[in-house]
Amino acid sequence: MKTITFTTDFGINSSYPAQMKAIVLSIATDAKLIDITHSISKHNIMEGAFVLQTTIPYFPDGTVHICIVDPEVGSVRRGIIIVTKTQILVGPDNGLLTPVAKKLAPFQVYEIKNPNFMLKKISNTFHGRDVFAPVAAHILNGVLFEEIGPIIHDYIDLNLEQTEITDKYVIGKILYIDDFGNIITNIQKYLLQKYLEPGKKLIVFIGKNRKEIPYVNTYSDVKKGTFLITNSSSGYLEISANQSKASEMLNVKLSEEIKIKFG
Amino acid sequence: MKTITFTTDFGINSSYPAQMKAIVLSIATDAKLIDITHSISKHNIMEGAFVLQTTIPYFPDGTVHICIVDPEVGSVRRGIIIVTKTQILVGPDNGLLTPVAKKLAPFQVYEIKNPNFMLKKISNTFHGRDVFAPVAAHILNGVLFEEIGPIIHDYIDLNLEQTEITDKYVIGKILYIDDFGNIITNIQKYLLQKYLEPGKKLIVFIGKNRKEIPYVNTYSDVKKGTFLITNSSSGYLEISANQSKASEMLNVKLSEEIKIKFG
Amino acid sequence: MKTITFTTDFGINSSYPAQMKAIVLSIATDAKLIDITHSISKHNIMEGAFVLQTTIPYFPDGTVHICIVDPEVGSVRRGIIIVTKTQILVGPDNGLLTPVAKKLAPFQVYEIKNPNFMLKKISNTFHGRDVFAPVAAHILNGVLFEEIGPIIHDYIDLNLEQTEITDKYVIGKILYIDDFGNIITNIQKYLLQKYLEPGKKLIVFIGKNRKEIPYVNTYSDVKKGTFLITNSSSGYLEISANQSKASEMLNVKLSEEIKIKFG
Repeated sequence: MKTITFTTDFGINSSYPAQMKAIVLSIATDAKLIDITHSISKHNIMEGAFVLQTTIPYFPDGTVHICIVDPEVGSVRRGIIIVTKTQILVGPDNGLLTPVAKKLAPFQVYEIKNPNFMLKKISNTFHGRDVFAPVAAHILNGVLFEEIGPIIHDYIDLNLEQTEITDKYVIGKILYIDDFGNIITNIQKYLLQKYLEPGKKLIVFIGKNRKEIPYVNTYSDVKKGTFLITNSSSGYLEISANQSKASEMLNVKLSEEIKIKFG
Repeated sequence: MKTITFTTDFGINSSYPAQMKAIVLSIATDAKLIDITHSISKHNIMEGAFVLQTTIPYFPDGTVHICIVDPEVGSVRRGIIIVTKTQILVGPDNGLLTPVAKKLAPFQVYEIKNPNFMLKKISNTFHGRDVFAPVAAHILNGVLFEEIGPIIHDYIDLNLEQTEITDKYVIGKILYIDDFGNIITNIQKYLLQKYLEPGKKLIVFIGKNRKEIPYVNTYSDVKKGTFLITNSSSGYLEISANQSKASEMLNVKLSEEIKIKFG
Repeated sequence: MKTITFTTDFGINSSYPAQMKAIVLSIATDAKLIDITHSISKHNIMEGAFVLQTTIPYFPDGTVHICIVDPEVGSVRRGIIIVTKTQILVGPDNGLLTPVAKKLAPFQVYEIKNPNFMLKKISNTFHGRDVFAPVAAHILNGVLFEEIGPIIHDYIDLNLEQTEITDKYVIGKILYIDDFGNIITNIQKYLLQKYLEPGKKLIVFIGKNRKEIPYVNTYSDVKKGTFLITNSSSGYLEISANQSKASEMLNVKLSEEIKIKFG
């Protein structure tokens, strides 16, 4: 049994994902359906790309992923399929899909063109249901990518990991804030590998704050309510507070700059 | 493999849906389980009926739908099964199920009577788990509707689409506000078909507001933060704002009146 | 097809559960995946234990349950498997799993030790994905508990049902507040069985309130907005208000004391 996943900014209260699932099941009866999340901040392509990048690589080979953060729905923006060696991504051509595709490179990009694999009547506001869901289901059924549309090379790229690094500091930004208030940066841990040792204090500039924060192995290595830097389970540096919400204590938001001095 | 869906007002945080799913799986081991939503506003039968009406028709033939917005649980209100040509609905007899049933007409209504298809011990507060879930699972297993209870004709009806229309204006109400803040009215687009053309400005009275709003094809046809009227993916007229929450900008709530002047 | 359930405090917006599901499917391809809830209050072991206790017993025999409320993740706290006659529980050794285990007694506890059944690289902050998910999937595949680790007897116990009872009153606490604002106490109904009859008024001390509240069969037995005590569908006494949020009206929180005078 093959799996289709769903990642959108439709919101946890939304019944729109169920409409997509109904369409998928009408075409691919046996599909296993998994929600990744419907809580991407509305229209936030960067956050969506981060969640996809950290989640999709864990899925079994051949999983098809419907990914929708799509502020330009109904306009001329294209729909695409990205095919990597292990995973298949379906969604809008706005950069959302490229970070995970590059992580799973090499990959091939197809434009979604053939109306035979879409619903007969396509609304202007809900391509998730009318285009992406049926296309994904047909892919699960074995339709060839070539039948859905041509290979393209001018897809929109997005780079999550742009940082400025010297031998004294690194400047990056906040990629994601999880439900625990943990702040995940776009600074890959391996960049600082040689500077980091458990217990070492780093100086962090974040929001309006300047904080001295220890690099540690896990949350409970510091006292309750105390800040820490650790290696996020996603491979990026993370700023947290043991059993508290670091994001609220520091009053920071998605995309804000963060500077870490380690030298 | 047959599917059972769940639509309730139990809330996204609730573990009650999982209790229903456990009961379903105990009886119909292979059932595929799909959440439509658990975020219907508490006790709001009209909103529940709208979500069912716009979602259920997309499901494959033979899907069984458990639908619970049930303020009178444990009282004398009846439990019913509505059987259409393609879908089977299970829930309370309070109007919740009738709008979608009429859309999928003809249909037959059965009262849930036979205790053999319920849990042995029935609580007064959770018929979803004790009555509707086991009944739905037994239906999936092939039990005949006649065994569960008799056909009835005096079920409670509910009309979502009551509007007042002249050749100058239409008065309806707000049926649903989605997570994007899009306002879905109960005004069916086809009623105004001959008056609507892309770009035409309409005068809208909604909440305490009087707004001139263009009818367009999709959100990105207007500037960010600007109002628009479009054809909702559900077939009703929808008032939105491109990449903004129209419901908050207009400060309106479910069930409020809306008047559109087009003449 | 066997089922794996998920209960965590990761939050409804979290994509972490999807990472766990991806791991499970990579190992146990056919697993049926059911969310119980991801909305346990952060780090609240007692609330998690209550939800598990009231939900897990309904699942079919052989279901495997991944349960994570784990403030000490990455520290020396152990991971355990609890095996009852019908259900299998996987999670941290912090009391979370014991109330439901005792309800389904007898049971056996195993420590999770064998790294062969974990991911190769184990993060310090996400044992749900790196330890508990793969262990649960291997159990579903038939791996023997003895291969995963030794039987232990010094697991951490937790008692949800500690109350003080005389022939005049009972003192307990608030175990759970559901999304309807219903207040579920830790007072088992059978303790008061001989004192309770429908319509009888009881005096309730809760938060800063002293209220005379009738014991009734169901919500609609009292007027809209009026308090009632009833037998919760979980077998505990529950304080509610018909179609209103009792928890907000009484301004109470999880774990607060409640005293009921019935004599």
